[in-house]
Amino acid sequence: MFLPVTIAGIGSYLPSRTVTNAELETRLSLPAGWIGRRTGVLERRVAEHETTVSMAVSAARVALQRANLEPSDLDAIIVASSAPQQAIPCTAALVQLALGAPDGMSACWDLNATCLSFLFALHSAAQSIALGQYERVLICSSEIPSGSVDPSEPSTATLFGDASAAIVLTRSNSGAGLHSARFQTFSSAAHLTEFKGAGTLHRPQHTQDQPDLNYFSMDGPGIFRHALTHMKPFMDAFLSSLEWTPADVDAFVPHQASRHGIEAVSTRLGFTAQQVVTNIALRGNCVAASIPLALCEALEAGQIKRGQRVVLAGTAAGLTIGAVALTI
Amino acid sequence: MFLPVTIAGIGSYLPSRTVTNAELETRLSLPAGWIGRRTGVLERRVAEHETTVSMAVSAARVALQRANLEPSDLDAIIVASSAPQQAIPCTAALVQLALGAPDGMSACWDLNATCLSFLFALHSAAQSIALGQYERVLICSSEIPSGSVDPSEPSTATLFGDASAAIVLTRSNSGAGLHSARFQTFSSAAHLTEFKGAGTLHRPQHTQDQPDLNYFSMDGPGIFRHALTHMKPFMDAFLSSLEWTPADVDAFVPHQASRHGIEAVSTRLGFTAQQVVTNIALRGNCVAASIPLALCEALEAGQIKRGQRVVLAGTAAGLTIGAVALTI
Repeated sequence: MFLPVTIAGIGSYLPSRTVTNAELETRLSLPAGWIGRRTGVLERRVAEHETTVSMAVSAARVALQRANLEPSDLDAIIVASSAPQQAIPCTAALVQLALGAPDGMSACWDLNATCLSFLFALHSAAQSIALGQYERVLICSSEIPSGSVDPSEPSTATLFGDASAAIVLTRSNSGAGLHSARFQTFSSAAHLTEFKGAGTLHRPQHTQDQPDLNYFSMDGPGIFRHALTHMKPFMDAFLSSLEWTPADVDAFVPHQASRHGIEAVSTRLGFTAQQVVTNIALRGNCVAASIPLALCEALEAGQIKRGQRVVLAGTAAGLTIGAVALTI
Repeated sequence: MFLPVTIAGIGSYLPSRTVTNAELETRLSLPAGWIGRRTGVLERRVAEHETTVSMAVSAARVALQRANLEPSDLDAIIVASSAPQQAIPCTAALVQLALGAPDGMSACWDLNATCLSFLFALHSAAQSIALGQYERVLICSSEIPSGSVDPSEPSTATLFGDASAAIVLTRSNSGAGLHSARFQTFSSAAHLTEFKGAGTLHRPQHTQDQPDLNYFSMDGPGIFRHALTHMKPFMDAFLSSLEWTPADVDAFVPHQASRHGIEAVSTRLGFTAQQVVTNIALRGNCVAASIPLALCEALEAGQIKRGQRVVLAGTAAGLTIGAVALTI
């Protein structure tokens, strides 16, 4: 069902510190050029003084300014990220506080579907706006994967980047909207991407002798195989339900999982290089922030224009595949 | 807007181990009767071999059986709890796997608004069903607070209990439905209820010298004051929007924060003791599982009957106040 919503404003924040491949290759004793060939990442940002909340708020301020709205105009705040700032309260409440959004004027909650958190939140907020529950919803995806990767493990320590992005979603009366959203979880692959600690199974206070539990781990080739297997039938069904072909899509914004993954999946789906938005070379894989950050940067650069048809899609730990089709 | 949904099945799971006040009063060197007078809790269940996922699945199996549905009938699984089983992937994907819900047949994500997670998820799922996105949504709230309280701190070590509850939500054509949902976050009180660790700010591997960061802490009297201040105008506005008075509500199911909190708030809102559903004496405060567990037990006991008007409401860390009105 078409949901008449528009991204009234979108913003992002990047930590000031840039970590180059040369720096990482020296630190990890890797051959020069290894990281770029393997991941497609040339440099990435790393949070130093920034926090999940401070980065979310920085992106939110830009999004609000571009929407010509104030924090007091928001009636809902969703933080859609793979990790909270702290276990309790939800990060969205801390964003309300740090943003200066007034007490009692907005409802705050967190949504987590790892790398697809933003798409689930976008869909949920669009449904709420369509039904008249909320009018102006802030969605923030803010990620600091640099703190959750084993700094001595090359395949993950080189892939990720820290960043945030935020949107303000409002009702549209201009033709913009969310045409369709589709998500499928294939949990036979749940253990291909894990961070076993920081929950109820391996409490922080009980993991002092098992540091591996507090690092992210993934079977990159396994995920790649699943993505290649499932993405094509998934996206064919998704586009068919819209009566769209790949040629009808002005821009395809994939999760920035890896350069090889983006290229292989985009080609198999039938998108041309001109249709595909990528920022992994300079940003790395920014977990849930990747898709909204890539969308933000593509809008800023004019690669995506208002009124165009945009498909946001990707894979997440779960393993979950998801897609959202918008007229932006 | 009225959302035509029904709880097709509801179930719960309680760990087999019961911890009595006598046992805790001995362990904590408290006077006999101290815990009961202070919290209203007489005993609580504590998970030993159970996990967040195993408890969610046990409750889900009961809910599915009562709904006369199979795991393969589900098209969405939401875990609505204050803590994940592990940081990645989302707990809902692990529930899909452990429940034997087939690969690719359901979308899985987590929603966290601490003690009000279930109400936010119920509302979100109801919106999705009303719009035709999903037909049969499993919502699980599964909590093990026994592992996150400081075992030497009497006010929290005695208050909480472990439990899970689950519902299967489907479309209704019988008059059952969700009449209204309302949530407000007052983040000036965000720091009254905290668990500072297990997130990006205080990573598990960096908290070995600061065990306090990995325990739950709360300012009980402060929360009580906020709840008393905000609940009355909040609920008056909520019921007014429905053109209901407290007398029109067949059952009021509050979050089981504490006996004093339940009694003071319920009285101030104008509900009689007969209208108010409580299970805190035997269950403790079960965080996000409290409301659906109390609802489940009241339906099983005949205290709530199908066709009745039920208001689910409470406060959560954030500080968030929320309410959902159903014809059950």
